[in-house]
Amino acid sequence: MKHIVILGGGFGGVYTAMYLEKMTRRLTDVEITLINSENYFVFQPMLPEVISGSIEIQHIINPIRRLCRRTNLHMREVQAVDLENKIITTSPGFHPTLQKIPYDHLVIALGSVMNFARMPGLKQHAFQFKNIGDALRLRNHMIHVLEEADIEEDEQLRRSELTFVIAGGGFSGVESAAELNDFVRGASKNYRHINPADVRVILLHSGERILPELSPEVAAFAERLLRKRGVEIRLKTRLAGATGEGAVLSTGEKIFTKTLVATVPAGPHPLVTELKCEKVNGRIKVDEHLELTGTPGVWALGDCAFILDPRSEGGSPPTAQHAVREAKCVATNVVQKIVGGEPRKFSFSSLGMAAALGHRSAVAEILGIKLWGILAWFVWRFIYWSKLPGIDRKIRVGVDWFLDVLLPQDIVQIKTSESSTLNQEHFGPGEVVFREGDHGDRVYLIISGDVEVLRERADGADVLTKLSSGECFGEMALMQDSLRNATIRAVTEVDVVSVYRQDFHMLLQRLPGLHEIFDKLIAARVAAPR
Amino acid sequence: MKHIVILGGGFGGVYTAMYLEKMTRRLTDVEITLINSENYFVFQPMLPEVISGSIEIQHIINPIRRLCRRTNLHMREVQAVDLENKIITTSPGFHPTLQKIPYDHLVIALGSVMNFARMPGLKQHAFQFKNIGDALRLRNHMIHVLEEADIEEDEQLRRSELTFVIAGGGFSGVESAAELNDFVRGASKNYRHINPADVRVILLHSGERILPELSPEVAAFAERLLRKRGVEIRLKTRLAGATGEGAVLSTGEKIFTKTLVATVPAGPHPLVTELKCEKVNGRIKVDEHLELTGTPGVWALGDCAFILDPRSEGGSPPTAQHAVREAKCVATNVVQKIVGGEPRKFSFSSLGMAAALGHRSAVAEILGIKLWGILAWFVWRFIYWSKLPGIDRKIRVGVDWFLDVLLPQDIVQIKTSESSTLNQEHFGPGEVVFREGDHGDRVYLIISGDVEVLRERADGADVLTKLSSGECFGEMALMQDSLRNATIRAVTEVDVVSVYRQDFHMLLQRLPGLHEIFDKLIAARVAAPR
Repeated sequence: MKHIVILGGGFGGVYTAMYLEKMTRRLTDVEITLINSENYFVFQPMLPEVISGSIEIQHIINPIRRLCRRTNLHMREVQAVDLENKIITTSPGFHPTLQKIPYDHLVIALGSVMNFARMPGLKQHAFQFKNIGDALRLRNHMIHVLEEADIEEDEQLRRSELTFVIAGGGFSGVESAAELNDFVRGASKNYRHINPADVRVILLHSGERILPELSPEVAAFAERLLRKRGVEIRLKTRLAGATGEGAVLSTGEKIFTKTLVATVPAGPHPLVTELKCEKVNGRIKVDEHLELTGTPGVWALGDCAFILDPRSEGGSPPTAQHAVREAKCVATNVVQKIVGGEPRKFSFSSLGMAAALGHRSAVAEILGIKLWGILAWFVWRFIYWSKLPGIDRKIRVGVDWFLDVLLPQDIVQIKTSESSTLNQEHFGPGEVVFREGDHGDRVYLIISGDVEVLRERADGADVLTKLSSGECFGEMALMQDSLRNATIRAVTEVDVVSVYRQDFHMLLQRLPGLHEIFDKLIAARVAAPR
Repeated sequence: MKHIVILGGGFGGVYTAMYLEKMTRRLTDVEITLINSENYFVFQPMLPEVISGSIEIQHIINPIRRLCRRTNLHMREVQAVDLENKIITTSPGFHPTLQKIPYDHLVIALGSVMNFARMPGLKQHAFQFKNIGDALRLRNHMIHVLEEADIEEDEQLRRSELTFVIAGGGFSGVESAAELNDFVRGASKNYRHINPADVRVILLHSGERILPELSPEVAAFAERLLRKRGVEIRLKTRLAGATGEGAVLSTGEKIFTKTLVATVPAGPHPLVTELKCEKVNGRIKVDEHLELTGTPGVWALGDCAFILDPRSEGGSPPTAQHAVREAKCVATNVVQKIVGGEPRKFSFSSLGMAAALGHRSAVAEILGIKLWGILAWFVWRFIYWSKLPGIDRKIRVGVDWFLDVLLPQDIVQIKTSESSTLNQEHFGPGEVVFREGDHGDRVYLIISGDVEVLRERADGADVLTKLSSGECFGEMALMQDSLRNATIRAVTEVDVVSVYRQDFHMLLQRLPGLHEIFDKLIAARVAAPR
């Protein structure tokens, strides 16, 4: 009995399983297991259309169990990969025990993750746009800011609520910006107190032109079209960080916004980082058969693998079409190894690329032919619709597209999660955490950085004291149920964790040591009045 | 200028706003504001169909802005109602300031909430079924238990994962049980290692027969049908509480399950409880014009109001048809007050009731006529479809019903929320929190109750010590990254809060006082080895 284990449920992992099922139909002694934290496969190319709602969120995802009926699916997190003993460890289910899964052949298709390491505040304040949860959160948030802008009395805050910033002018960024722009401008008409002209959508791109993957004239068409629809495109502009107030650019300029979508940069999956094998730029190095050099029986493909492209001397690009072809090659070679045949070499050159721009428009370059406008849009829709796996999904997406023409946009916000107890926030130098007289709804703990405590006066402000890492603030208003009695302003880059009133009181009541800490703290602060 | 403020976005609140918009079309000096924590209206009667997926979740909800275009919608929580000064306070938006909204006329339509006060553990371990978030959470959870049951090796745990318990044999409970049963039995066929015959769906009802709102022969038909489809119905059985292991009955018996849906009991909304006015059973007492006695200009309707029904001598039932009629009466009377006319008295008798039982079957009693089976099902669908507000929703639900016949069930689990940092759990006497040798993934704090620390031996277990309210456990495995070195078992009813490893370490590193507490704790525990 040979056990093939696949890690990851994206294009690479799922198509490997599908090809393996086909190729091993006559082999009785092969068992396939796929491990993925979700039980569905996301059809990534259609993800941006979920933003505007022209496709419903659950229609671009497909149950992996239906696509791969003979595969064992484990909906768990992978915790460790032990290449030496050939064992995968997965996270606990309802009972807290780790599960060990031995394998004979391992296929690594873990993709990439967003890498915000060098950009302070992005983790806390930027929206990612990689999976279904991200799309749903972003959509809900956009509706939330419109709701708030409709009733906000502070003009500056209202303007920042109506500003939407997308960082990254590649495929993902441009498609997201186009869909987001369509959605926000359309939806804003439902709000009595919002003037659609006040809506700003800004696309930041570090390069000299957007869509560097396409040829200049096609990219220029996309740029003109987006500008015409009201998207402000800022080229040669790099995002450097984010705070609760807005996006911070590398020039130090700040764009005030409550909605920052970051589509760059991708980094290696943490499990791939931990893996003991040869890597290129964090990606697993594989040979021409997509097998790890020196570790027979282990394959890697998709965004997490570095596959040398002999033509460009670089790695093959992180696209769906490559992942699917790599999956076929990996499946073939795994089967060849089991039956004792010759492995196949991987070779594939891109068929072309297409980016949807919303409103029946797109740009594309397919087999060298350049297309734009409504024709490119039809080609885009036809190609991706035909690639969408599962006849039921084809029908549902078709119906969505049809109804989208007839029916108005949806503006319902589905909140599913209660707000988390510990909130992480990032503040830039000079930003105000809260102001004297504000409503006191939570207590803060400084994780890193310094803040100053101010009392505001008609002619400026007195600095009462400074606080830094490990210190708390905001507990006074919470314990005495009053308004904030001072202003807190960040001096440096500051990371804080905050706990809401209700949870704070629960912890306080039950953890005697914690109460002592706060009693001492308050006594000390009252003695030195602020 | 007269300002009418409506609290609540259910049938009562939204229909009041809709009727007010119609009736005040010629009055220029009237402003309507509706405050609701969501920006949509849920068409409750179709909520159970969301469980099985025969209607998609966003199609039974309708943007309030589209239904009431001339109404100001505030998507905020109401924090306080000041009847004396005629001011409503709402929760903060992006900026932490409370908003004060003055009113001339106030309409209270806050509905009811689940009241788990006397049932330990229900808050932590039972699923509610009142709003869209509940429906989505329940659906995701059902898929999660199927996923786990498919790979679980522990037979007892697997059986409890495949057991589904619904408490309450009224309309909501029966409809939910029918839909849940259809869904789980259908979906389980997609799982390679689940035998559909192992699935148990149990309906608990405290009375002598289910559906007490209907006449006995109709209810008996529903009971026979559900039993035939595999639902176990346990009459004269009352739910008393819940733990992570299962449902606890009033007899002390425990049904092992990971899925407990509680449809009873309803209690007053916390704001209604705080309100200083006359009440009957927690509901606001109103006169025949639906106005609060002694507080002119304030109306109440729907589930939160007690409206004396002269025929039955009780309050009018908490149904959608009553709420809509009450809304019309309130809107009329508010307008009459503004223009100086005579108020209308409320009078309405129910047109009938219908319960959908899934699979093209229902029971109904309409204008005294008893119906069951497929005819009742057609009547059910026709009536509710025609009542569904908004032509776009009618189309979408129609399409859903059509596709539901053609396409297979969806089994995708959309996780949107990261797991909350503080998890609350409840354990019954004798239940094990964790066992020696388990994976140590979090630290626990006892909120109330006692636990004992055990070391298991071949011939039983030694009790090493007892811990109670305010004490921690489980920190050792977390700080030393090892497996649990003892078993923790509840002695009494126990409430705990747990924090996952990552958050615990973050707090520990940053909050010096906390580190001290744990250092002392561990030193003391190592000195007295357990």
